Amino acid sequence: MPTILDLHSIKKYLQTVDLISLIEDGFIAYSSNQVVVPPVGELLFDNPPGEAHIKYGYIKNNPFYVVKIASGFYENKKLGIPSSQGLMLLFSQQTGELVSILLDEGHLTNVRTAIASMITLKHLAPKKVDSIGIIGTGIQAHLQLSFLHKVSDCKNILIWGRDKSSCLAYQKYFQDSPYHITIADSIPSLAQSCSVIITTTASTFPLISADDVRPGTHITALGSDTAEKAELSPSIIAQADLVVSDSINQSRSRGEVYQARKSGHLNENKLTELGTLIKNPKQGRINDNQITVADLTGVAVQDIMIATAIYNHHKNLTK
Amino acid sequence: MPTILDLHSIKKYLQTVDLISLIEDGFIAYSSNQVVVPPVGELLFDNPPGEAHIKYGYIKNNPFYVVKIASGFYENKKLGIPSSQGLMLLFSQQTGELVSILLDEGHLTNVRTAIASMITLKHLAPKKVDSIGIIGTGIQAHLQLSFLHKVSDCKNILIWGRDKSSCLAYQKYFQDSPYHITIADSIPSLAQSCSVIITTTASTFPLISADDVRPGTHITALGSDTAEKAELSPSIIAQADLVVSDSINQSRSRGEVYQARKSGHLNENKLTELGTLIKNPKQGRINDNQITVADLTGVAVQDIMIATAIYNHHKNLTK
Repeated sequence: MPTILDLHSIKKYLQTVDLISLIEDGFIAYSSNQVVVPPVGELLFDNPPGEAHIKYGYIKNNPFYVVKIASGFYENKKLGIPSSQGLMLLFSQQTGELVSILLDEGHLTNVRTAIASMITLKHLAPKKVDSIGIIGTGIQAHLQLSFLHKVSDCKNILIWGRDKSSCLAYQKYFQDSPYHITIADSIPSLAQSCSVIITTTASTFPLISADDVRPGTHITALGSDTAEKAELSPSIIAQADLVVSDSINQSRSRGEVYQARKSGHLNENKLTELGTLIKNPKQGRINDNQITVADLTGVAVQDIMIATAIYNHHKNLTK
Repeated sequence: MPTILDLHSIKKYLQTVDLISLIEDGFIAYSSNQVVVPPVGELLFDNPPGEAHIKYGYIKNNPFYVVKIASGFYENKKLGIPSSQGLMLLFSQQTGELVSILLDEGHLTNVRTAIASMITLKHLAPKKVDSIGIIGTGIQAHLQLSFLHKVSDCKNILIWGRDKSSCLAYQKYFQDSPYHITIADSIPSLAQSCSVIITTTASTFPLISADDVRPGTHITALGSDTAEKAELSPSIIAQADLVVSDSINQSRSRGEVYQARKSGHLNENKLTELGTLIKNPKQGRINDNQITVADLTGVAVQDIMIATAIYNHHKNLTK
């Protein structure tokens, strides 16, 4: 019988795992060709609109292979159900046996995505950051502030969302936190005031224009993970001094880098993979005038690392 | 919390479900473009050798979408563990929520594969069948005889396997069954004595030659489900009057039809999809001199049908 871990246990275990170095190790393994990660499987639904992603893979010579199913059904809010759903499965690489079911309801996906964003900030943000702008007010917008202290001392946050009420709710959610949260009037005003911007939306059209981005800014775009979604004007990619993708291979078919390449705005020489950058930090930002962009589409190695760590933690506690 | 069903419950429920008509309905839906089934995901392992298939999809306007993970690790026998492993997952098409985990350890995959084979026999076997030949002595070779009574009265079985000891074990396993089982000296002698042949191996080279196949024979090849595997000489496909594939789309990249097409042995006009044949039985065998071949690579609609039926059965029992 496989070990079944529910969300409550998973959340408890997450508090004790060093998530940043864990996921960094995963990206390094990925960019060193130690990871087998086939293309993402996808199911799309019309009524109600929804999407499910099936990611799977393994790190060579590790004990497990991992399959993750994560979905987004954005009308769930109306029903009072989280839009993100899903689970992760650990199987033995030796026998194929199912070892563990992690009933994380999409939480591990949310966390590993937020951690990837923190890793990009750790390696690409300018030295001096006065304000950080967050576009979007959903789960990722919230999770960014749960983990931001791990990589930045900045406490000034500008938030922008389509709904004023969601912005107010966001502000209220963090009222007792160390963060000072201001609602931006517009995306241009947010961009012009921030040297770090994180985009967390499911937008299908560019939200930020190149004109609005000031020199020295770092942007992490983590919302666009399909061929249809886009949060940044391709001109931003053209303008950037350095573009980092969590998976150059996946960027051929999805995300901001895909959009920029398609429209002829990508200079391949500026493109680096995140794991390569983590391993060779000298390939990163050179000065505080450069514009850097990180495009995250999500790689199964993040799932492999986080699921394995949670299961191993459980096993150590119960042996 | 999702409903978790273990293998014991699943086996009990399987006895009361009308599997043949269920899976037939699935194939009809598939061939009528009512089913969304993306290409199969695959993970390959070297040491020990193993493969995992990830199949997923849904029938339009049905309540669930299904993800199935099924693996084959052929050295498991040495460890006393079944080579087939896996599980199926049911999710809501409305919200993405995980509804049920079917811990079938690969059994539902084995059963739905055997049932697909029975469906091909039901629609393609000649009227008069003296002997049925089974190539291979593994799980599928055994399961064929568990379900054969549903579609055929023939009790004479010829078996061929690489290991004499496996053939003897097979014979012994069925010694109290209604079947009379003879071990064939060779594949040619088996083929020459049988008007129905079922191949159930993981062979990567053709086992049956066209010369050995007598007029009127029906062959169901269910072992080859990757681009590497093959059980039939492509000449058999060339010689056949009718070739039926469970998924013409999948046959473009795997299985016997793929091999035959690659080597120029496929006449596309002879190729029909199984769901089309079930819906229009007149497209099937015309007389008892025709050679017919069914190539099964396995389609997620089979998983969708069987998993949904098992879950619904459980729900009806417990409400």
